[in-house]
Amino acid sequence: MAIHAEDTTTAVPGFRFAACAAGIKTEGRLDLALAAADAPASAAGLFTTNLVRAAPVVLAAERVRRGSTRAILANSGCANACTGSAGLTDARETTSAIARALQVDPQEVLPASTGVIGTLLPAARLVQLAPALAADLTPEGADRFAEAILTTDRGPKVAHARGEIGGRPFVVMGIAKGAGMIHPTVAPLAPHATMLAFLFTDAVADPRALEGALVRVAEQTFNRATVDGDTSTNDALIALASGRAATAPGRGGDVAPALEEAMMLVSDRLARAMVADGEGAEHLVEIIVRGLTSDADALVIARTIATSPLVKTALYGQDPNWARLLGAAGRAGVTFDPDRACIAVGDVAIVKGGVGMGADPEKQARAVMARPSYAIDVVLGDGPGRARYFACDLGIGYVRCNASYRS
Amino acid sequence: MAIHAEDTTTAVPGFRFAACAAGIKTEGRLDLALAAADAPASAAGLFTTNLVRAAPVVLAAERVRRGSTRAILANSGCANACTGSAGLTDARETTSAIARALQVDPQEVLPASTGVIGTLLPAARLVQLAPALAADLTPEGADRFAEAILTTDRGPKVAHARGEIGGRPFVVMGIAKGAGMIHPTVAPLAPHATMLAFLFTDAVADPRALEGALVRVAEQTFNRATVDGDTSTNDALIALASGRAATAPGRGGDVAPALEEAMMLVSDRLARAMVADGEGAEHLVEIIVRGLTSDADALVIARTIATSPLVKTALYGQDPNWARLLGAAGRAGVTFDPDRACIAVGDVAIVKGGVGMGADPEKQARAVMARPSYAIDVVLGDGPGRARYFACDLGIGYVRCNASYRS
Repeated sequence: MAIHAEDTTTAVPGFRFAACAAGIKTEGRLDLALAAADAPASAAGLFTTNLVRAAPVVLAAERVRRGSTRAILANSGCANACTGSAGLTDARETTSAIARALQVDPQEVLPASTGVIGTLLPAARLVQLAPALAADLTPEGADRFAEAILTTDRGPKVAHARGEIGGRPFVVMGIAKGAGMIHPTVAPLAPHATMLAFLFTDAVADPRALEGALVRVAEQTFNRATVDGDTSTNDALIALASGRAATAPGRGGDVAPALEEAMMLVSDRLARAMVADGEGAEHLVEIIVRGLTSDADALVIARTIATSPLVKTALYGQDPNWARLLGAAGRAGVTFDPDRACIAVGDVAIVKGGVGMGADPEKQARAVMARPSYAIDVVLGDGPGRARYFACDLGIGYVRCNASYRS
Repeated sequence: MAIHAEDTTTAVPGFRFAACAAGIKTEGRLDLALAAADAPASAAGLFTTNLVRAAPVVLAAERVRRGSTRAILANSGCANACTGSAGLTDARETTSAIARALQVDPQEVLPASTGVIGTLLPAARLVQLAPALAADLTPEGADRFAEAILTTDRGPKVAHARGEIGGRPFVVMGIAKGAGMIHPTVAPLAPHATMLAFLFTDAVADPRALEGALVRVAEQTFNRATVDGDTSTNDALIALASGRAATAPGRGGDVAPALEEAMMLVSDRLARAMVADGEGAEHLVEIIVRGLTSDADALVIARTIATSPLVKTALYGQDPNWARLLGAAGRAGVTFDPDRACIAVGDVAIVKGGVGMGADPEKQARAVMARPSYAIDVVLGDGPGRARYFACDLGIGYVRCNASYRS
């Protein structure tokens, strides 16, 4: 059965969700979210590779290693980062309050925070709210959870995919947030740019197999997404599997291929949604780089193009300024022959053999660049190496957003 | 004698300058510049490390290796980059026309171009103008030369320094341009971000010694300057020494220490001027990173901070958002203990032991950040490694400038 994906939430057997307004953000907005598993769920997590790691990241990275988790407590409005030992205490106390309310071990509750760095959580208030939040958990609460973790996002990022393993249906649902400080390089024990992303599935997966799948999925999706090239202190990507679908586990230490495929599909959608919702962004641009000696070389070039301020302002200006693409590729530190470069915007070829093809194709390319979403194809040789990266434009909205974010 | 520096041009014995309006930029603006040596001058050049190198860079890098040069022909308005073999022919023909007018070998004329990439020079017109341009050369023409090489710059960047070697006075004059696509990493046979910078001296220096000094000077000045992190296809840093001051040459393959010091002073002023004039920039910020194991580690962190969009938009917003500085340092890939971080803006300490010192110092820091020029001191341990980087803010002006640069 082909896997079917949609950009909505759905119930995932074994999980319940809740959210409330705890006053961390402006009065009345949802900012505290709880996801709970009815029974211990198989768990895996990847966290920011930034050396400066927020308190919730330190704690979640340590706790997820148990491989079994009961809940995720996430908040927006405050990143609880650069908060020293007080921040760590706050993360411990708030997750302990949830553990008490759910009658589980505090080690089974993973914290996640996003928002302003360098300020403390109103921990006492969160502790007070924990019982009511736990009492609100419902299988249908995912939309409220998704809303409560947003910061500068224009809207929630959700997706789900359904598949079958040996004839038994399962579902993977993903919930993410992230619009700025987005350049996740999550790794086991290391996430980035405040991206928070959570995957929930009822399929059966052993924690190590789940982590392996998560690493491969992140590498192709979240780690290929950039808004501003800044990797956050708080990035976290967490997957929980309830096993309630009673699907067959994978073989050879891997999850079932259909499960990994569904995780990939959902993550791809969430990563695209994050970049499309980049702070001030008006265009989601898939940068495809091909023809290099290796995928690794192609990735270095794709990343350099996707993060170049000159490229990104050209995307904003809807200007097919191919020379900026070539210039960024040229400074990436990877060898290729610029005289063989071919570039297409959407399906309009604008560069052949390293030189521009003139005003007419550029005019057609401008029309493509007016679209909210399109691809740029950069071919730099005839090698097998290829990579893609999701980029967005750098516009006045990004500057406005970040020049005054704390004010 | 202490070396004395000023931000003006001056006559340099052995050199003459001229400029004219060749119609490459808007009608009537100076856009073609010539510097000529009365006799073969000792020469050294560093060029962009970008793999995509403009035709003038290819030619100048090849020709400067002779170590003896008679002229530099520079133009603005057109970078003659990504122009294939036609661009190379244009660079050859225009410099040949100058060589004929000056009655020198074409190999002794170095081309340099800056401006729009991907378009051809009006080469026939430049060839036609060559005799008149050569006839206009005067020892006092440096200000017109400096004006003719500007693109998006708000104004010319010039400086000179006077010193003595063994009692004999000499002068070093520098002329530079560059406001965007600025993140020079020039190396022998490789320049960056269209920065063009030329040093003229009447001191005696052998070409190899001159190149050695130029490498060290660039490493501490131009290669520590960033506007947008984009390295140009056209960057060039060229030094010419007429020897007319008849100073003693240096020893052990180096230039005389006073000459290198004067080159460093002039280059430091030009690099600061380029960053202060960054596209849309309102602040020149010297990022100082200290306390690392090595200078190399400190440099990686300083560069990461100086190029972080989140840091740069905070500089624009005059927001002492120290967590963004720490976040950028943390993703640089260098190990340090975030809990020991201390940060000061100007002389106002705002972070101690990795945590913020509160609202009062931040308010004072805001006042410092309103200045056109200030320093940020980031101490990350007690090691001997330190580095500095010149950064500017990323504002709405940068986006406006680059979203429509070609239009």
